[in-house]
Parts: sequence; C-alpha cells; structure tokens
Amino acid sequence: MSSTYGTLFKISTFGESHGAAIGVIIDGCPAGLEVDTAFIQSELDRRKPGQSRITTQRREKDEFQVLSGIFEGKTEGTPISLVIWNEDQRSKDYSHIAQQFRPSHADYTYQQKYGVRDYRGGGRSSARETAARVAAGALAKLLLKQQGVTVQAYVSQVGRLKLETPYQQLELAKAEENAVRCPDPELAQQMFDYIDETRKQGDSVGGVVSCVVTGVPAGWGEPVFDKLHAELGKSMLSINAVKGFEYGSGFAGTELHGSEHNDQFYVDEGTGRVRTTTNHSGGIQGGISNGEDIYFRVAFKPVATIMQDQDSVDVNGNPVVVSGKGRHDPCVVPRAVPIVEAMAALVLADFYLRNKAAKV
Amino acid sequence: MSSTYGTLFKISTFGESHGAAIGVIIDGCPAGLEVDTAFIQSELDRRKPGQSRITTQRREKDEFQVLSGIFEGKTEGTPISLVIWNEDQRSKDYSHIAQQFRPSHADYTYQQKYGVRDYRGGGRSSARETAARVAAGALAKLLLKQQGVTVQAYVSQVGRLKLETPYQQLELAKAEENAVRCPDPELAQQMFDYIDETRKQGDSVGGVVSCVVTGVPAGWGEPVFDKLHAELGKSMLSINAVKGFEYGSGFAGTELHGSEHNDQFYVDEGTGRVRTTTNHSGGIQGGISNGEDIYFRVAFKPVATIMQDQDSVDVNGNPVVVSGKGRHDPCVVPRAVPIVEAMAALVLADFYLRNKAAKV
Amino acid sequence: MSSTYGTLFKISTFGESHGAAIGVIIDGCPAGLEVDTAFIQSELDRRKPGQSRITTQRREKDEFQVLSGIFEGKTEGTPISLVIWNEDQRSKDYSHIAQQFRPSHADYTYQQKYGVRDYRGGGRSSARETAARVAAGALAKLLLKQQGVTVQAYVSQVGRLKLETPYQQLELAKAEENAVRCPDPELAQQMFDYIDETRKQGDSVGGVVSCVVTGVPAGWGEPVFDKLHAELGKSMLSINAVKGFEYGSGFAGTELHGSEHNDQFYVDEGTGRVRTTTNHSGGIQGGISNGEDIYFRVAFKPVATIMQDQDSVDVNGNPVVVSGKGRHDPCVVPRAVPIVEAMAALVLADFYLRNKAAKV
Amino acid sequence: MSSTYGTLFKISTFGESHGAAIGVIIDGCPAGLEVDTAFIQSELDRRKPGQSRITTQRREKDEFQVLSGIFEGKTEGTPISLVIWNEDQRSKDYSHIAQQFRPSHADYTYQQKYGVRDYRGGGRSSARETAARVAAGALAKLLLKQQGVTVQAYVSQVGRLKLETPYQQLELAKAEENAVRCPDPELAQQMFDYIDETRKQGDSVGGVVSCVVTGVPAGWGEPVFDKLHAELGKSMLSINAVKGFEYGSGFAGTELHGSEHNDQFYVDEGTGRVRTTTNHSGGIQGGISNGEDIYFRVAFKPVATIMQDQDSVDVNGNPVVVSGKGRHDPCVVPRAVPIVEAMAALVLADFYLRNKAAKV
Repeated sequence: MSSTYGTLFKISTFGESHGAAIGVIIDGCPAGLEVDTAFIQSELDRRKPGQSRITTQRREKDEFQVLSGIFEGKTEGTPISLVIWNEDQRSKDYSHIAQQFRPSHADYTYQQKYGVRDYRGGGRSSARETAARVAAGALAKLLLKQQGVTVQAYVSQVGRLKLETPYQQLELAKAEENAVRCPDPELAQQMFDYIDETRKQGDSVGGVVSCVVTGVPAGWGEPVFDKLHAELGKSMLSINAVKGFEYGSGFAGTELHGSEHNDQFYVDEGTGRVRTTTNHSGGIQGGISNGEDIYFRVAFKPVATIMQDQDSVDVNGNPVVVSGKGRHDPCVVPRAVPIVEAMAALVLADFYLRNKAAKV
Repeated sequence: MSSTYGTLFKISTFGESHGAAIGVIIDGCPAGLEVDTAFIQSELDRRKPGQSRITTQRREKDEFQVLSGIFEGKTEGTPISLVIWNEDQRSKDYSHIAQQFRPSHADYTYQQKYGVRDYRGGGRSSARETAARVAAGALAKLLLKQQGVTVQAYVSQVGRLKLETPYQQLELAKAEENAVRCPDPELAQQMFDYIDETRKQGDSVGGVVSCVVTGVPAGWGEPVFDKLHAELGKSMLSINAVKGFEYGSGFAGTELHGSEHNDQFYVDEGTGRVRTTTNHSGGIQGGISNGEDIYFRVAFKPVATIMQDQDSVDVNGNPVVVSGKGRHDPCVVPRAVPIVEAMAALVLADFYLRNKAAKV
Repeated sequence: MSSTYGTLFKISTFGESHGAAIGVIIDGCPAGLEVDTAFIQSELDRRKPGQSRITTQRREKDEFQVLSGIFEGKTEGTPISLVIWNEDQRSKDYSHIAQQFRPSHADYTYQQKYGVRDYRGGGRSSARETAARVAAGALAKLLLKQQGVTVQAYVSQVGRLKLETPYQQLELAKAEENAVRCPDPELAQQMFDYIDETRKQGDSVGGVVSCVVTGVPAGWGEPVFDKLHAELGKSMLSINAVKGFEYGSGFAGTELHGSEHNDQFYVDEGTGRVRTTTNHSGGIQGGISNGEDIYFRVAFKPVATIMQDQDSVDVNGNPVVVSGKGRHDPCVVPRAVPIVEAMAALVLADFYLRNKAAKV
Repeated sequence: MSSTYGTLFKISTFGESHGAAIGVIIDGCPAGLEVDTAFIQSELDRRKPGQSRITTQRREKDEFQVLSGIFEGKTEGTPISLVIWNEDQRSKDYSHIAQQFRPSHADYTYQQKYGVRDYRGGGRSSARETAARVAAGALAKLLLKQQGVTVQAYVSQVGRLKLETPYQQLELAKAEENAVRCPDPELAQQMFDYIDETRKQGDSVGGVVSCVVTGVPAGWGEPVFDKLHAELGKSMLSINAVKGFEYGSGFAGTELHGSEHNDQFYVDEGTGRVRTTTNHSGGIQGGISNGEDIYFRVAFKPVATIMQDQDSVDVNGNPVVVSGKGRHDPCVVPRAVPIVEAMAALVLADFYLRNKAAKV
C-alpha cells in the first residue's frame, strides 16, 4: 500500500471507514503559514455526507482535530496531523457482505492482494478516505492563496446531461449555490431531478467534474516524468471511482489539426506578460505551467453500490445474490467537487515548493 | 526536473535531442533475467524515425550500447545503463529558433522555469527522450514475459477516423503489419492517406493509442495514491503530446447507470478462477488488478511543429513569425505505440515487484 | 522537515512534546501479521519516563491507541496509525524559555530554519518523538520474529565506565534486569551510582548503546547507497543526542592490518552454511548481510538539559542566563536501548521486504 | 540495489569496474550554474589510481565525458550525465577468483543476494564506483561555492599513527601537498613510510579521514529522520570500507558531562551573529546547521585485498586458498579524501535546495 503522496508537500493518509478514525499527516508545509481552521472545516463540510436528498444519508459531522504541527495559529514546519473520528459506524449494516464480493467494488481485489480485508463498508477502499485529502487540501489551498492561486471545480456532466459552455463563459461561484454544484442553475435542476430519479430506482449514475486553476505563474511542474499534468492526472485517478482525466483540449483535441490547435504567443500590452491567444494547451506546455489558466476534466463512473440485487460469488467461490443495503450516494460528482479541488491544490503546492530549486 | 520514475523497478533517463547522447539507467531490475538484446533493438526500431513516408525523415539508427548491469547475458541486479548516441544532429536546422518561442512547444516554459534552454530541436523536451523509455520498457517486457504478461498497443484513432470495434474483436497483431499501426487494415489505409494528406499541407493531426495488457494476476497495484490505473495514467501523461487518459469504460462510462456498469463476478468452471461477466472496470478495481484484461486509451494532440507560418514572440517580447522547418512527424501516434507499451510495461514491472511485499 | 522513513516498510511520525498527541503511521507492513498489542505496550514501557531514580520523573503512561490498519487482530496491509496522547504537559514549566536559546538544544536552529518554534519542552525536537518510533519498531520486531531475527541492545558505556567484554561472552538478557540496562550486574551498579551522582550535581553524562542482531540471513541490504550499515547508521544518527555510529570493528578496526582484520570463510559442517571464523565485518560485507551476527555501537552525548545556570542569548540577541528547570534524564542511554532496537528493527524490516525483489 | 541518492539534488550512479564504463546522472542541479569542467577533472585526478608509490599502480586516466545537461557552459536544469570509460581492464588478472569468495570482500554476499555476480575486480562492489561520486560531488561543490561553502577533508590517522591536533590549529591546505593527504608534513612522512612498509609486506592498513565544512548558514538539515548529520553519516557509511562515523565531539564526547559539553551562545560583536563559544555540537543542533563549522570523522578499515594467501571457500563450498594478486591500495585513506568531500558536498547541496521550502 502506498498512502503517501508528494515530494516536498507530502501527505500520508490513514484510516478505514469503520475503524476508530481516519486522518492525515501533512509533512513539508512551510512554517509560518496562518491556519484558518474554520476554512478547513468548511471544506470538509462541502464533502460530508447528508448535504441534500441526493447524497448519502449517513450522518457524519466530519469534524477534525489538530494533533500536531500548528502552534499559536501558525504552521511550525513540523508534521501537521489532522484526525477525523468515525462516529456513525453502524457496522451491522455491512455484516451481510463479510463473505461476499460486491460487484465492481474492491472487495475481491483487496482479498486477493492482502489475504484479509476489513469488510465493514469498504474499509480502506471506502471513499471516506478522501475526507483526509480534503482536510490536507484545504491547507494547501491556504498556501496557494498566498501565491494568488485559486482552484475551483464544478460538476459539468451527470449521466448524459452535459454542460457544454466553456468555463470562461460561466460564473463558477454559482456552482456552490445548488446541491449538484453545477454553475448553470437550470441544468443543475435537471441534474438534481435526474439523480433523484436514479436514487428512487435504487440505481446510480456517473458524471464529470471540471476544474479551473487560476493564478499559477509560468514555471511550475517538473519534466520529464513529473509533468504538471501527469501529476494532476495521477492525483485525480487516485480518487475513488475516477475512470479518466483530460486537460486542455483533451480527447476532443485529437481530432484537430496542429494549425487549429496551436496556441500562438503574444505580449499583453497592459502587463507586458507573454500570453497565448487561445489555450488548447490548458495552461501547461512541456509539463510546465505557462501562466494561462489550467483546466481539466475528471470522469467518474456510476458508484458501484446500488439498491438492486446482483449476481456475484462469495469468498468460497459459491454463487450469491448481493442485495443493496445501506446509505450511499446515487451520484458521486456533487461531493467529488471539493475532493478534486483538494487533490489539485496538493499537487500545485508541491510543485510550487519544488520550483524554488529550479534556478541558481 | 524529475527524470526518475518507479519505486523498485526505477528508471532515470537523460539526454537532449542534440547533445552527445540520450540514455537510461534501470535500477532495480531483478538479477538473473536473460537479456535478449535483439529484442530491445527491435523495440527501438519500432519507435525510430524514418519508418515510412508518414513519419519524420530524420535518419537515426537508434542503436543502443550497454554500459553496465548485464554480465554473461544476464542482469546482475546492478544498474543497467543503456546509451543511444545522437548521430544526425544537423544543429543548423534549428538555429533560426534560438530566439523564438515556437507556439505550443515547451520553449517558453523551459525558458521561464530554468532561465536557459537548449534551443536545438527542443533539447530535453524533445520526444527523442522517449527512445530511452522504449529501451527500458523492453527490459520490463522481458521481465513481465516471465510472468505471462503481454502488453500490446495500437492506433485506434487518427483525427476523426475512429476504430470503434472493441479490442476483443480485433486481431491486435495486425497492427504491426501497416505503417499506421492500426489493426483494421482498411481503416489503417484511410488513416495513412489522411496523415499523408495532412503532411502535404504542412500540417499535423492528433489521434488515440489504445493499449491492452493480458495475463496480470489479481493483486497488482498499490492503493491509495499509487493505484494501478493512477500510475498508468501518470506514465502515459508523461509522454510528449498526451492530453488525456481513460481506462475501462472511461469517459463513456460516465453516462451509464451502475446497474449497467457493474461487472458481476462468477467462477469460471474450467479454471476455478473468479472472473467477471463484463469488464467495464478495465481489469482494475480499487486500484488493484482483478485478473481481467487491463485496457486503456491515450489521447495525443496534433504535434506542435507544422510547416506553416505562425505568429509568436521572441525572447525579448517582440512579435515574430515562426516558420516551420525541419523534419517532423505529421502524426505522432504510429510511433507512439511502442512508447505507450514501454511505459505500461515499466509501471507493471514496478507493481509486480512491489506486490511481493503485500502479505506475510 | 522529513518525518517519513523507509522505502517499503515506511513510517511517518508526528507530534510535539506538549501538543495534543504524538504518533506514527506505518505504511507498508505486510498484511496478515498477528499483532500482539501487549508486546507493543511493553516496548513503550521500556522507553517511558519515570522507570527509576535515574530517569526523568515525568509521569507519562505512554499508552497507545490504534486508529487504523489492524482488523480482527491482524494487519490489513493498510496504514497502521498509532497515537499516544500527551498527558502530563505542565506547559508552565517551560514558559521561562520561550524567549531563550538553551545551549546545545535545537531552540536556535529551529528558530532560524522555521522562523517559529514550539518552545514548550522542545516541541518537535523533544526526544518524546522517539516513543512513536518505539511503537512502530515493536511492529517491525513482530515481523522480524517470523523470520527468526532478534534485535537486542544494551548499555555498554556510561561516562568513562566501559563494558569491554565482547558481546559473545555476555548474557544479554541480563541487561533488562537492572535500571541501567547493562548486562554486567556489577558494572551496572557502578553506572547507576555514577548517574545518580551526576543527577545530584544537576549535571548529565553521555554513554554508548551497543546492539546485536541475530538471525538475519545473507542477502539483506541494498548497495550502493542504501548499504545495510549505511541505513543503520542513518537511523541511529537520527535519534536525539547521537554523535557517532560504528559497526563491526568500527573505529578500532582502523588500527589493524588487513591480514588481521579479514574474516576468513569456511563451511560449517553441521549446517553446511558458509560462515566466517571471525566477524570484524559485523555481519555485513559490501553493504549486504552475510549471515553472521550484526553488531554496532551508538554514541550518545550528555543530554543538554542540566540543572545549572548557563550563559546564552535570547531571541533578540541579548545575553541571558538559562536556569535549568523541569524534569530530565541525567543520562539518556538506559531509555535509549529500546529506541536503538526499534530503529534497527525498522531498517531490517524494510530491507527484508526490499530483498524480495532482488532476484527473478 | 539502490544506486540513487538525494531528494532534490539527486544522483544515480552505474557501472562495474570491468564493464564498458562507469558514470552518474545528476538530476536536480539548478539551472544556470557555470560548469568548470577543468575543476571536475581535477577532482577526479585527486581520486585516480597511480598517484604515488603508496596507491594502486593501475593506470586509469579517469577522464570524464559529458553526455547531457550542460549547454553553452551552463547547467540547463536537465539531467547531467557524466561517463568515465574503463580503459585498463585486464580482466585476466581476476579470472582466478571467479569461483572463489575473497575474505571480507562482497563476493559472497552479492552471490547470495543476486545469484549472479561480475567477478571481474569486484564488479559493482569495486571502489571504482566512487569515481562517479567524485564527478557528481565536484558539481555539488561548484553549487556550494556560490553559497560560500567549502568542504575540505584530510587524513587524520593511518594505522596507529594519529593526528591529534584539532583542525582549527591546522593549515588544512597543506594536506594536498603530500601523497598521504595529511596536513601535518612530518606525520605525513611517517604515515607514508608506514603505508609503504605495509605494502612491501603485501598487507593493508586502515585509517581515518576527517572533514571540515565551513560557511554553511544556520538552517540546513531536515529533522526528524533526515537530520543533517544523519544524512552525512549515511553518505559516508555508503563509501566502500567505511566502518564508522562521528561528528562534533563524537565517541569521545560520551565521556563528558553536559556542563562540559554544552556550547554556550553569544552574539559576535563584529557581525551581530549568534555564535557558540565552543563547538562540541560540530555545527549541528537538532539535525540543523547552526552556522558554526561542521566537522566529522570517518573510519576506514584496512582494505580486504592483500598480497598474502588466505583460507576461504569456493562457490561450491570447497576449501580454497585465495592468493593475493592484482594492483591494489595498501591504504585507502589518501584516495578517500576527495570521496569524503564529494559525498559531503552532495548531501549539503541537497539540503541547501530542500531548505528553500522551509518557510513561507
């Protein structure tokens, strides 16, 4: 298992969904950063269950506790340990699946790899682990804010309902005004209804989260293997249920000619800064930020847990029928928005620090 | 810069396109592996320029030399150093761009990050660096072959020409029978013509490479952050010109319901092995291989170098017209096939070794 | 800061001496290991304060809590999080030093490096951090025990009182029968009296901890840079107050000729195993274990906190007199014994896992 | 095997003593550093064989070639690859030991770990590998020079001949004026005679190299595990034949009381800088540099190769007599001086870069 991520701004998460607690150590956050704990909590609140009818009805307050690394309101340069206690465990909900492999969950692969597994609610493979990422990501956001960098994600697709408008023409802040986190209010309502309908059928549905990062100066990202977009891609693909990642022109860009796709440089008269007239590059060239907005899209599959009977096998290889129980999200993307932002912030904070060593 | 990749099977590449040489050190390859050097060369030959009319006409033999790590035909457990000398440098071809930033190349970002750059043919940002990856990947393939694992990639899209047939219904070996590396001969011919037409117009075009990995047993991959698909994604996104990655159902899967998307388990009567009836998971669940085929798709943008005039700026911020010169690929995907395979093999070799430590 | 250690068996510690808690995440412990929690507690008890008159009189129970990674008594392969709450904080004891730099402490260097510091009892630089290492090391010992490996340390010097007897002629288990942890009972009493005398004078004294590891098979250790003894050395030097490390013949071996120092090989008739007639190599050749006992010595300086007035400066550069207060160890080596063992066990567990990937 | 070292200033070495070449990749050297290639060669010359009667008579020019990373005389920020070709291989000299395990060499342990080994002159375990370190270390020295940091080592002991004078009272530059590299000319002559005598007897002898680093500002080093002295210790212990490491007061300091050992702070009137009246700390407190000189000592065993018959076993477990042949150093410390300096420089360069991320 590798639950550590990052080179200089490094996080290590721990915890099973039904163990005592989950949490994270952040090692490498620069000293002297003022820590707005209310902000960290507000980020956790954006991810927590039970926010609306279309998210899981589990009741977890997801309040975090600081165990170390913050002194008199500031980071000390030492490891920052944040813990979130598991309250609403209800292990009984999961006892029926101790011997079964739920389709498209990690039950079977964990069993094969480790020989043992915590069958209670997915254990370590539960998306509950991402709460620790959100807490750490909030700290990364505070560090990035000092550098003028903002990270904002939103839902751009639920099932076949797609927001085709380019992000530049959207008011992204509106995403936080509805339960779906889609910045187009009308489409958001359609998405809400669709998810709610799916929920009533005991089914689930997939979607896409888009993310825009502004304010990154030219120079972040470490070629060859740790290209900025490669690390963004890895970080997104490490989130539960993610099946794909694209940045800038992405898969659609494969259909274009170079003469259409190339971003031409010019000098902005006002600022004297080198800019590009278009941004198919998604703010990254050769793995390094070029000063333009960074944007990317993340594909989430429909969550595996559904309230329907499914054929499967048990640990002894016997056919079984897995019955859906418990409280789960019919669509993961609304709650995935802060997770995507957190992972992006963690990657960017790390590259910000690494870039300090680029030149003599 | 980070030119090192992997945890146990670790590679470090070096070299600029117009320096003395490029190469790679492979550190962590298990001892006692028989090294088929002809196979390594044949993999390099699949990537080398000048293979057909639709690839760059540069003449590089790309012959490799072993500097260390192989003794009496076998790996020693020590670092294996492979060097490929740069022969056909023709630095003059590039002198005109020393002061210019070519659109959508890494010229500007390298300059901003490092303050200096080797302007000859892209220097370190040149795709020539991938030859070192192919050499290392060939070694990884030899290691994987012992484990019964095969890695096969092919071109599934060029511009808007798409191979929609699922890989299971294709004869993948046919991909190597044509210059495009598309396993559908008819479509391959259309793609060839399209690329050739694009070349004549001095333009370039993007495409998609698909990859299938067979024979991986259940258990490879290291959750949480180093999920098998997350590392595959990073490795692919680290290849020049890649804009997106998806595995299994990918972006298309976001439109489905869970009841359609879930892969149900059954026990194969012949082998007694747990299998799935469908494979939307792409052979990976919870970041760990489940024993089914692993498959994924990689999006390549149209290469930035085109034989047309483009507006840009120079290092002093003055407007310039960049004229396309030199010898370049109008479409990168045919030569990207062995690169995609190499990166996949490197990731899998690493996870194979890491998995040895999973259980007591 | 880097509070993470290890490649496959990886630990991350956190916590300040007077924060809420200290603790550790162990990531990479193989799944399926039975966890004897009473043994972990007993190891912590060997390190905890207040064991006798010659150790600090602070009262800390150092009881640990498992937050994750252990399920039904076994490791799950997931990160194991252990927390030890700080009980006896008495922050007032330390308020007088908030503005002062204590001589030979880390006050000044932390202030210079980080710009802020937790002045309460040394904060992160306190040896209290080593409790987390002992907890993690106990787990490593359980893993090593399965492989037949034992790690035993003891006090071999206090001030000028030296145990010159080679370890082979000692009954090492006797070390745990006295407060000093010296296996020679008579010398142990002299050491005790000497430490006690030192304590009464408000002074401190240094010493040496020796360590013997048995049962390591040939093959552990990763040349070139991660030689077994190099990593052992780093791990020991990372313990507070350590000033030196030597293994096998060590510094004394520098005086010998090769003809005296070389360990000749022979085949043991009983086991058929290749052995050496002497063991100046300390069980390690070329950075790799050779199957003989591994042994090494660790030098600890006199602890910096003394109950005497000392000249120093404050954070504003003004001369001050630092008065010794609080409760501290007059000699650190008795309590350092389990810490040395823990670090050795962590290094060996890591190399045990890494060695699984050495050969095809 | 792990032949990679460093976090940001990272080196990867390769090569067997009798393979085609040895070399190193330096990844992470900041861009824009002017590279004095003559200086790099002069450092290699300090390490090369055949410098005097008391070093091995092998003839290797040890000239290096730059394969990448340097453009127009400056580092580019890309991996710098340096290669040294093996010229004087004379493989026949070593054929007699293909089946034998030389006492106190790494023959047996490599065979056990890897199942294969390059028996020609020690292969990868040969000290020839350190030439690559010296080349990389020379680059690190150039980087450190910009920061006002100097690294100077010297021989302070050969066999029982010891230089007891504190380094502050020595003229260290004189070390380079004699073949032994001892700054006391008279003692140097005695050492020379002793080594020469040892050589004539076909024997070898150990010794100690001391090292002094000046100009490091307060703040370098990363607690907890990557303490400055812990990493220095590891780097030194990774050098062939090293058996021990101590810094500051070292093993001798264990005999002192805290009241003698503590370094009291004062403010230097001239510079306003916080200084210490003594320096038992060796310039490092809590793992972080405090601005005083850093100094340490490294113990080298007598080299294992001697020109005498020794009992051993062969790969089949049969008793054999190993006869000393070939050309070897009777005492390694004179040529170890630049190696010690190189490793110290590499560690310091890495911490210099890492420290850039300590504070907001």
